[in-house]
Amino acid sequence: MDLVGPRAEFGAGVNATVRLEVSDDAPFGPDNLPYGVFAPPGGDFRVGARIGSDVVDLSVLLDDSTFARPDLNAFLAQGPRRWHTVRERLREAVRGPLPAAVIHPLASVRSKLPIAIGDYVDFYASIDHATRLGRFLRPGGEPLLPNWRHLPVGYHGRAGSVVVSGTPVIRPCGQRRTSSGATEFAPSARLDIEAELGFVVGAGSELGTSIAVDAFPDHVFGVALVNDWSARDIQAWEGQPLGPFLGKSFATSLAAWITPLAALESARIALPEQTPEPLPYLRGQQDWGFDIDVRVHWNGVPVSAPPYRAMYWSGAQMLAHLTANGAGTRPGDLFASGTISGPRRDQSGSFIELSGNGAEPVDVGGSERTFLADGDTVLLTATAPGPGGSPMALGEVSGRILPSRR
Amino acid sequence: MDLVGPRAEFGAGVNATVRLEVSDDAPFGPDNLPYGVFAPPGGDFRVGARIGSDVVDLSVLLDDSTFARPDLNAFLAQGPRRWHTVRERLREAVRGPLPAAVIHPLASVRSKLPIAIGDYVDFYASIDHATRLGRFLRPGGEPLLPNWRHLPVGYHGRAGSVVVSGTPVIRPCGQRRTSSGATEFAPSARLDIEAELGFVVGAGSELGTSIAVDAFPDHVFGVALVNDWSARDIQAWEGQPLGPFLGKSFATSLAAWITPLAALESARIALPEQTPEPLPYLRGQQDWGFDIDVRVHWNGVPVSAPPYRAMYWSGAQMLAHLTANGAGTRPGDLFASGTISGPRRDQSGSFIELSGNGAEPVDVGGSERTFLADGDTVLLTATAPGPGGSPMALGEVSGRILPSRR
Repeated sequence: MDLVGPRAEFGAGVNATVRLEVSDDAPFGPDNLPYGVFAPPGGDFRVGARIGSDVVDLSVLLDDSTFARPDLNAFLAQGPRRWHTVRERLREAVRGPLPAAVIHPLASVRSKLPIAIGDYVDFYASIDHATRLGRFLRPGGEPLLPNWRHLPVGYHGRAGSVVVSGTPVIRPCGQRRTSSGATEFAPSARLDIEAELGFVVGAGSELGTSIAVDAFPDHVFGVALVNDWSARDIQAWEGQPLGPFLGKSFATSLAAWITPLAALESARIALPEQTPEPLPYLRGQQDWGFDIDVRVHWNGVPVSAPPYRAMYWSGAQMLAHLTANGAGTRPGDLFASGTISGPRRDQSGSFIELSGNGAEPVDVGGSERTFLADGDTVLLTATAPGPGGSPMALGEVSGRILPSRR
Repeated sequence: MDLVGPRAEFGAGVNATVRLEVSDDAPFGPDNLPYGVFAPPGGDFRVGARIGSDVVDLSVLLDDSTFARPDLNAFLAQGPRRWHTVRERLREAVRGPLPAAVIHPLASVRSKLPIAIGDYVDFYASIDHATRLGRFLRPGGEPLLPNWRHLPVGYHGRAGSVVVSGTPVIRPCGQRRTSSGATEFAPSARLDIEAELGFVVGAGSELGTSIAVDAFPDHVFGVALVNDWSARDIQAWEGQPLGPFLGKSFATSLAAWITPLAALESARIALPEQTPEPLPYLRGQQDWGFDIDVRVHWNGVPVSAPPYRAMYWSGAQMLAHLTANGAGTRPGDLFASGTISGPRRDQSGSFIELSGNGAEPVDVGGSERTFLADGDTVLLTATAPGPGGSPMALGEVSGRILPSRR
């Protein structure tokens, strides 16, 4: 799929150089350059950048111990000026001949979780998702709760359960109420996905301070797709009055590659209209909407196309809200948008929406599905307009359901 | 207050020894020995144990790099056999002459957060607290929600906002709804406390596994008092449907000294009766109730006496529930009991209860209070029966309210 030309190799041995012939309009082209953590065969984990079907080893290219670590956190903590400098050096480097020792085929390396996550917050920022779920949960009532249009509703998830794309997901057991009103402990029968965009905090902020909407790019390093796996039956029984807990905390998958905010400059768009006008602490001079198209693939079949551009609250508003009470942030904190859904059902970022709360099964390659079956795989991909107008890829996130261990 | 006799000093210079004359029935006597992290004057942070009004420097006493670190996590990760060995060595050491270099007066050292916290979970395990809050929130309805007697309700809090006892707490700002139905962003006007018992996870568990009720002492290292500061006005507006968020995430105070579970052997009691009988995954051979008395001091005035022994769910049940879905745990994870309250109002662990939801002000040393005023201090202390029957102290947690920075 990548428009990668043949490699031109010059010289041999330790001084050999390679020229990466990756087209400007390739999905992972020279203006994209997401960061991740990888281990080459026989080597330790270190920081790299993805280009075409290769990885550039930043610990060798820049000869900097910041990148000779198994997470991005030291780099994140260095802040936006340094992020800019490194990105510019990297953009230049990938257009010239590179020492062969800094290039590894992506297929030959192992990936891991690219960040050591401090706190993980999940929002609920899609008005179409919140409305559809409200209709399922409160039929006949107002689908949106009174606070929804006034603040980005969110909650803390379990940082220790965030896993890198490709990690299998074991079907969770949990307590639920049966139709007869009894309770039972059993494997979840309504295992679902939530297709989300995650935001990685780079430069943190002190406890007691807050981050204004317009300071978003000073603090947020980049974005990555998130699949916030959800056990709807566990969640329904446990969730009052303190919110989701075990229905979420068994696994959350994060893409291996973090797209820097700087790569999304040409994808920035205005937000949808917000009515009523948000309070001043949720307003800024700049909008932080993104023209991102997400695709959900169920067992390899594309089943929905959630439009991130339809999200009501921006990542900048989420971060301003998250810190409005003085909560501090740390490099490696992760916050996610909540399920990305559009107004049409085939724009759903969750299967509870796609299947009409389980009432209308979905055809998945000739097989009927409502929620996830053991052995099912889910792959989320996304694209955004690159500087030349052709689609730039965001790193994908995938997972396969293993049977419950019970 | 501590029954500390005069120190007997022998010798001089580097070979000087000290004998700590701390009575067996002192609040921080030789069978208590909580662990914390401290820095002596001019020195780095390291692990110590508290005895009487002194701290024993474990990094020097045991000459082990595990203790020459600014948190307990490396020691926690070593597991219960090692915890036992170190405790036995320490109990023996404090009864004999000790090198003077390992002893520091508590008043001369600085403390810090004793653990690097992975995930922080807060439960809601007091039936008296949940019932009283249910009456305030749903007057006329069933005070307890349908799930409450079936599972320990809990949610994730913000690990990055946990601060050590003594850290000032800045009054948070937040969004709330006014009596006219408008929204505003303002300093919280209903700032409250929650007196809780925190449990520190020592030995972690892999994602995909769960921890049985009876495996509690294999995983939990110890306990410490927690004050889960709460902004009731922010919490009331934001909390549906995903639970508490900014009403809690501005600060949570943790005691500087962690009492090892082994020190509480003589404080163990049966749980109150649980009806209906919990599902099998919440049952064990052993009960993990504790005969702990908590005291809440408001501006130095004792205002309530929450009885931990009245808690409905045990810490062992909380941990079994927390991991029942396969969520992993890490050394340094913290989970707390939720507000400890007894049936009488003067046994309330929160001021919303103590003040009858703000309707009945409390006399605090001649001043009337409902919620916290700027400049107020709150100190939580607790005792449990020691092996000889006299009260053993748990490390205290304190905080003072600073005005909002807005």
